[in-house]
Amino acid sequence: MSSSEERDDVPETKVLAIASHVCYGFVGNTMATYVMQSLGCEVAAINTVHFSNHTGYRQVKGTKTSAEEIRNLYEGLTQSYLTDFDVLLSGYAPSAAAVEVVGDIAQDLIRRAEGKPGSFFWVLDPVMGDLGRLYVAEDVVPAYKKIIHHADLILPNQFEAETLSGIKISTTSDLTKAITLIHKIYSIPHLIVTSVQLSNLGSTAPSGMMTIIGSTVRSDGSPRLFRVDISALECNFNGTGDMFAALTVARLREAVFAAGPSLRNTKSWISPDDVSPTELPLAKSTEKVLSSMHAVLLKTMEARKAELAATDNTFVELTDEQQQFREHLRRTKASEVRLIRNVRFLRNPIVTFKAQEWTE
Amino acid sequence: MSSSEERDDVPETKVLAIASHVCYGFVGNTMATYVMQSLGCEVAAINTVHFSNHTGYRQVKGTKTSAEEIRNLYEGLTQSYLTDFDVLLSGYAPSAAAVEVVGDIAQDLIRRAEGKPGSFFWVLDPVMGDLGRLYVAEDVVPAYKKIIHHADLILPNQFEAETLSGIKISTTSDLTKAITLIHKIYSIPHLIVTSVQLSNLGSTAPSGMMTIIGSTVRSDGSPRLFRVDISALECNFNGTGDMFAALTVARLREAVFAAGPSLRNTKSWISPDDVSPTELPLAKSTEKVLSSMHAVLLKTMEARKAELAATDNTFVELTDEQQQFREHLRRTKASEVRLIRNVRFLRNPIVTFKAQEWTE
Repeated sequence: MSSSEERDDVPETKVLAIASHVCYGFVGNTMATYVMQSLGCEVAAINTVHFSNHTGYRQVKGTKTSAEEIRNLYEGLTQSYLTDFDVLLSGYAPSAAAVEVVGDIAQDLIRRAEGKPGSFFWVLDPVMGDLGRLYVAEDVVPAYKKIIHHADLILPNQFEAETLSGIKISTTSDLTKAITLIHKIYSIPHLIVTSVQLSNLGSTAPSGMMTIIGSTVRSDGSPRLFRVDISALECNFNGTGDMFAALTVARLREAVFAAGPSLRNTKSWISPDDVSPTELPLAKSTEKVLSSMHAVLLKTMEARKAELAATDNTFVELTDEQQQFREHLRRTKASEVRLIRNVRFLRNPIVTFKAQEWTE
Repeated sequence: MSSSEERDDVPETKVLAIASHVCYGFVGNTMATYVMQSLGCEVAAINTVHFSNHTGYRQVKGTKTSAEEIRNLYEGLTQSYLTDFDVLLSGYAPSAAAVEVVGDIAQDLIRRAEGKPGSFFWVLDPVMGDLGRLYVAEDVVPAYKKIIHHADLILPNQFEAETLSGIKISTTSDLTKAITLIHKIYSIPHLIVTSVQLSNLGSTAPSGMMTIIGSTVRSDGSPRLFRVDISALECNFNGTGDMFAALTVARLREAVFAAGPSLRNTKSWISPDDVSPTELPLAKSTEKVLSSMHAVLLKTMEARKAELAATDNTFVELTDEQQQFREHLRRTKASEVRLIRNVRFLRNPIVTFKAQEWTE
């Protein structure tokens, strides 16, 4: 790619993305597809649900894709030799059987890449629950535990890290133990625990901060831990996990390519042991990802405020309960991430957040 | 929008797009969504099929969305007040019942826009067939004929224009008659007949050219006809009709906004009678649309050539027939439109094709 207009594209990347589709707004594949495309990636999307909107609205219409349909779509790709994917990004799967099919698809792509180390990479977001609560069927957990050791990078939140490691995270030292154990039990080369509130874990970190903790394993199995602190925004947005995952696909690949041909031809892109935590491609990637996200979410908050000011919240002839629900819908709509007209922050982040070595 | 990075966005536009989804490659909504997003439009996509790939591969796996599912998804949007659409773009519908639901959705959106002329606009691509052959079920034709008078702009190809007008187009004068009749029978304000080969219609146009004929109706019901000639490319691409439709949504709205507030507050954006054919927003839009498309398709041809040179076409242990089919698959894949890394041609077309007045 030579022309100046393409200078902001990441290296050419073909992604198979398996996650939800919503008609209105941005979560799942609807978020991830545009985010990756806007950075220059080709994206093939298998949609695990076809919903009118995200579940944050508390009402939704549409259908879930069955495990058999997901398998069938992938067979459609293989029968026409459309499997030249560099990365698999897998997110929400609506059943244990669907998780299993995603695992089968990943293993097929791994098999096709045999003999070409580093030519295929699986980013798995083990969507199971949040804030101490499982929001998938119970049999989804063992289904993930069975497939996860094939993944190269996983993106659990704190609850999912607890679920996978079996360690209740109450202190910063629990967090380190959980990450070390996940590397070990599942042979996971890279992981990022998204959105940890350190102030809840006995740390002296200020309470208005959120922390993202990442690690790439060393050859002796020990973690290389880094942290990035960001100021928490006073608003809940849906789809931010999917945005994080999609940006990470593009930015990690970019950082791995920037590290030279040796790393990208190494299985699972594991940096040599002498690379320090903050110099890891995963750390460099996370800095850019969070800087993009923070800028887009600040713009979203501005737009949300303007939309709420401009639209009416007086609903006549409604009971209090109905009124509250209408107001909930109005606020949820106003909080949809404003991606499209803020694409410059995706393509050209000004890096304002820096990785630091994490020592509990 | 004030910052320089957004200068290439079209005016803010929310589109409901109803068409096919394919995992791999670009046709239907998979094409239209990214094209409109890249120009700054918000797009809500209801997918009428969920296929592994486009049918040009001659084999496909996946499912069609039932008419009831389409209706249900739209009800999901209405129940949460997610209907603030400026434009409806409707493409391939997999059954007569689905066409009917699309018509119902359009009429609901028209009803919601009552009292605000110009605030809602329906672009309908009446996907029925091509090159003299119907490729949908026969009952789809009367289903389209029933709903089409609610549309603001339709984009038939020559065969579809024949089907809708009932006129077999063998001469340039037949073409004019067909367009005039479509304006009249269906009260259609705007139409564009995509890809006409005038050299087949007794015109003196050189045979290597393709012509696009458009018209916006005058208050007396007469057409205002313009033509844009482009050099035909020696390759078949899938999804170019969807690309044309999506670019037209964005560029027509841009041209209408550029014409001042009066036009955009006029029902169906019909320009005053004194606006000449070549000064119509529809003509201005078509110039930009075709310039974008031609540049992207030239880049696609280059990439196609490189991909075919780089990939192997010797398949061992195959019969001649199998060998031919593999080669067909290889060529079809290589011909997928290269959209993502050529987005600059979508955003910043250099206008090389100019509209001329069409006189048969």
